Amino acid sequence: MIIDHLDQPLPGSSLHPTPSGRAYTDPEIFRAEQAEIFETMWNCVLRADSLDQPGRWKTVTVGREEIIVVRTRTAWIQAYYNVCAHRGMRVCTAPEGKNRTLQCGYHAWTYALEGELVAAPNLTSMPDVNRQQYGLTPVHVRQWLGYVWVSLAQDPPSFDEEVLGEVSTRFGEVESIDNYGIEDLRLAESKTYDVRANWKLIIENFMECYHCATIHPELTEVIPEWADGLASQRAGGEVHGSGFGEEIAAFTVDGSESGLPELPSIAPDQERKYYAITVKPQVFINTVPDHVIFHRMFPVSESRTIVVCDWLFLPEVVERVEAGELDVSRSVELFDRVNLQDFEACELTQPSMSSKAYRHGGALVPSEHHIGEFHAWWYQVLGEQADT
Amino acid sequence: MIIDHLDQPLPGSSLHPTPSGRAYTDPEIFRAEQAEIFETMWNCVLRADSLDQPGRWKTVTVGREEIIVVRTRTAWIQAYYNVCAHRGMRVCTAPEGKNRTLQCGYHAWTYALEGELVAAPNLTSMPDVNRQQYGLTPVHVRQWLGYVWVSLAQDPPSFDEEVLGEVSTRFGEVESIDNYGIEDLRLAESKTYDVRANWKLIIENFMECYHCATIHPELTEVIPEWADGLASQRAGGEVHGSGFGEEIAAFTVDGSESGLPELPSIAPDQERKYYAITVKPQVFINTVPDHVIFHRMFPVSESRTIVVCDWLFLPEVVERVEAGELDVSRSVELFDRVNLQDFEACELTQPSMSSKAYRHGGALVPSEHHIGEFHAWWYQVLGEQADT
Amino acid sequence: MIIDHLDQPLPGSSLHPTPSGRAYTDPEIFRAEQAEIFETMWNCVLRADSLDQPGRWKTVTVGREEIIVVRTRTAWIQAYYNVCAHRGMRVCTAPEGKNRTLQCGYHAWTYALEGELVAAPNLTSMPDVNRQQYGLTPVHVRQWLGYVWVSLAQDPPSFDEEVLGEVSTRFGEVESIDNYGIEDLRLAESKTYDVRANWKLIIENFMECYHCATIHPELTEVIPEWADGLASQRAGGEVHGSGFGEEIAAFTVDGSESGLPELPSIAPDQERKYYAITVKPQVFINTVPDHVIFHRMFPVSESRTIVVCDWLFLPEVVERVEAGELDVSRSVELFDRVNLQDFEACELTQPSMSSKAYRHGGALVPSEHHIGEFHAWWYQVLGEQADT
Repeated sequence: MIIDHLDQPLPGSSLHPTPSGRAYTDPEIFRAEQAEIFETMWNCVLRADSLDQPGRWKTVTVGREEIIVVRTRTAWIQAYYNVCAHRGMRVCTAPEGKNRTLQCGYHAWTYALEGELVAAPNLTSMPDVNRQQYGLTPVHVRQWLGYVWVSLAQDPPSFDEEVLGEVSTRFGEVESIDNYGIEDLRLAESKTYDVRANWKLIIENFMECYHCATIHPELTEVIPEWADGLASQRAGGEVHGSGFGEEIAAFTVDGSESGLPELPSIAPDQERKYYAITVKPQVFINTVPDHVIFHRMFPVSESRTIVVCDWLFLPEVVERVEAGELDVSRSVELFDRVNLQDFEACELTQPSMSSKAYRHGGALVPSEHHIGEFHAWWYQVLGEQADT
Repeated sequence: MIIDHLDQPLPGSSLHPTPSGRAYTDPEIFRAEQAEIFETMWNCVLRADSLDQPGRWKTVTVGREEIIVVRTRTAWIQAYYNVCAHRGMRVCTAPEGKNRTLQCGYHAWTYALEGELVAAPNLTSMPDVNRQQYGLTPVHVRQWLGYVWVSLAQDPPSFDEEVLGEVSTRFGEVESIDNYGIEDLRLAESKTYDVRANWKLIIENFMECYHCATIHPELTEVIPEWADGLASQRAGGEVHGSGFGEEIAAFTVDGSESGLPELPSIAPDQERKYYAITVKPQVFINTVPDHVIFHRMFPVSESRTIVVCDWLFLPEVVERVEAGELDVSRSVELFDRVNLQDFEACELTQPSMSSKAYRHGGALVPSEHHIGEFHAWWYQVLGEQADT
Repeated sequence: MIIDHLDQPLPGSSLHPTPSGRAYTDPEIFRAEQAEIFETMWNCVLRADSLDQPGRWKTVTVGREEIIVVRTRTAWIQAYYNVCAHRGMRVCTAPEGKNRTLQCGYHAWTYALEGELVAAPNLTSMPDVNRQQYGLTPVHVRQWLGYVWVSLAQDPPSFDEEVLGEVSTRFGEVESIDNYGIEDLRLAESKTYDVRANWKLIIENFMECYHCATIHPELTEVIPEWADGLASQRAGGEVHGSGFGEEIAAFTVDGSESGLPELPSIAPDQERKYYAITVKPQVFINTVPDHVIFHRMFPVSESRTIVVCDWLFLPEVVERVEAGELDVSRSVELFDRVNLQDFEACELTQPSMSSKAYRHGGALVPSEHHIGEFHAWWYQVLGEQADT
């Protein structure tokens, strides 16, 4: 197995070790991650309401593949490899569009929104052609939290166990994520970050707040408990909500009033609190009382990752923003700054991953120990795959 | 052998399969193609009359090598690797020039146009130096159709069989390519296209007209039989000339009169007809009654190919163009548009070649079946080579 | 061993052969060179007086590593991998600076200038943490000729044998390099060249003057003995000083007076003479009576090398230059032109290294035979290393 050749941690270290730097730089390991993680597990790819009518489609990247996600005539959402069954040309050649059928621009092979081949020049003279066999190659689709999730596996992992199970375990029984009604929120702002770092550095960064005091002045002003360098974003098996400072009115860049109504169904102990969870392998969700911040990661290479961050608000809030009656820019700016601060740290970490001085990995302090669970998961997933 | 590891077509397909997408994306396969195809077979590299005097030279790329092609003192054309025998510097450092000898700019080793070492600082004090052994390394040269063809093989394949044989078989006995007198035509226009696609996609595109109705509106206007999607550019063993539409005056972008005289020796059944043939591995020739369109391909990587297209006319036509008395731009524009349309299709096909959805290849419809002969040739050439 | 697979020289050549072109193009060979040569041997990295106060640091590249070089509180110079022991972030994120401690910007781990971990958030609650073990990883440092030299080897080669021994052998007993007092000179000018060529081509170029007549008109005007194409920069085991032409006043671009005092301790037979030596693997030193030209090479890839050239003068000269009373530009311009001429030749040689016509290497004429010693050393170093 490819990870059998990783340098092991040095014996006798008093702190918990991380994987060898090569885990973050070896193109072979990244290829295995693409195959075994991103092209197998459930990936959250786009907001379902962005496909607002039958025939509306978008293309997204999953692992090394380009996928068409389309709303069909029955208003369900389906997804296909963006590869014509005839000679392979990209069927959709724009990032998005709306069509009654999906037609390849090379030889005019034409597919129903449901995937089967419905027309092609001289198709009638080829009676043997099975229109399903020569249809678009489908991928598995689920919808949850208002997002479309896809799995490229032939036999995908259980969505309930892998995604829902992870989230409910982390959020605990009482403070359910359902209270935030994420499915019914609307997108007010989305930002895309092109990060020159391995995707695992971004996850590790998201999972700990030991760095908060050093690089996040605005965030630690809003959530003072993170300023002591001890904070863990998760205590025991459950997500630990972090309270706002006493002077803080809302989760805004300066802690001032947001002017936004609270999400109507949150529980009392979700008020004035911030929660963060990681849904492996590529989603981070942050909830605050009046909005939700939702990250999706798209790894490009061993040293480059695209991160898309969505800011979701109540529909009436977004309507008032669109009407120019409300301004959510101070809410958006807080996590935009956090993102920029985090990604700069990741980018300054990536080059060291190839250093001899990091060949046995680095260290986790006690408040970062839960990152070890992420590493254990990673070792297990890559260890179980056959050599590529 | 490298192609033993290609994914095989899925069993039970009703349409004829193409090779696995990996044939178009694997750098190892491309290296084998460079070695076994482009650095072995005959490559058409430049128009012979562009070397108009003894000492006139040009540098060209063949496979991964840079070659000097030069007209010698006896007016014959020879070609050499552009590598000084001393320490390897490029002997010719410009795309073209005219010199009485070829002198390396590093240590002034100087070669006759015929290749042998004729001077070097202190050469007289090195009496053992064999001036042939330390001459430029020659490559094999042939001239045909007014072009210079080279083979880098030590022992090149038979030009008569590999090139002439293929062309005469395809053109048949009667409608000989000789009628077009390509050797005596002159270049009026040349365009270079930098195509982000594998060279085999470009050949496959050139070999079929199933796509003509979809992407070539001007061409199908001029040659209406291609609008039905059934047309093959070759029927049986011979090239099938395609007739102009009734309203069409000439092979111009709008079908209007070209104002050009017909090539004097074409046969009656070559009038008002278009012929196209592929000379593997890198030449496409199109003939129409009043000019010839001649393509040369130069593969750069598994996903990039330079294509040079020449438009050749009667010498008196080119003289009148140069004098400003005649305009061939509508003739040139037709195939320039066809090229741009074709290469865009190839570029939109290339990215899918690495998709899991294309790992077993695509499909050929009946009117594309002759592309299977090209694939069979490719399997044979790469299958016969030793592992690299 | 990786070099076992190099193509061998053709038998029966009358001239001395060079290594196969693949030695200059194979990324695997370059990786072995980085590991076994640049990350093992002594590298000259920067001028010691550029770290003029305790806490002043610079980052430099050695092989594939980024190294911090810092002047400590005791005014000694030390060097470390620029990798935080915690999670690996670059500790120094600028090319240079001045600090009382070296603090990582991610989690605020803080290191003394002497390397040990002195502070970190909650460090006191981690009593087991060994502050040396979690300090910066040091590398070996020496100072000589006013430069800082580092070795990344755990157990570095002997500086006395590898560096001093080589230089004194070459300079001979009498004409010692010490006469030039290089340690006490000061930098007046430094130029950085980004050369698209393998580092060995640059060394080979520096070691011979057979090319001088062809590409260095200014240099051969100043040192006429190099115009005959016979000159070797080294005769026998010793460096051969090359005399200035009779009409030449100084080592300036036009041979005119430099207006500079002679270095005070040079020997009579060092007057009006130029000496050049190569200190493997990355230093070239040229001495003339009134200044010293000092090159350092930093290989980036198999086909790219950064070269930094320093022009060093007496301190009083540099003071007068800074005061605008003296102009050394004609002195600087001579070797700047030589550098540009040499590096252009190297860049025009690099592309041929991958040619079939150079697969058995090139040739050395008699006046270049000492380059064979460099090649023998290279074969030995790479031959002794285990497969990578």
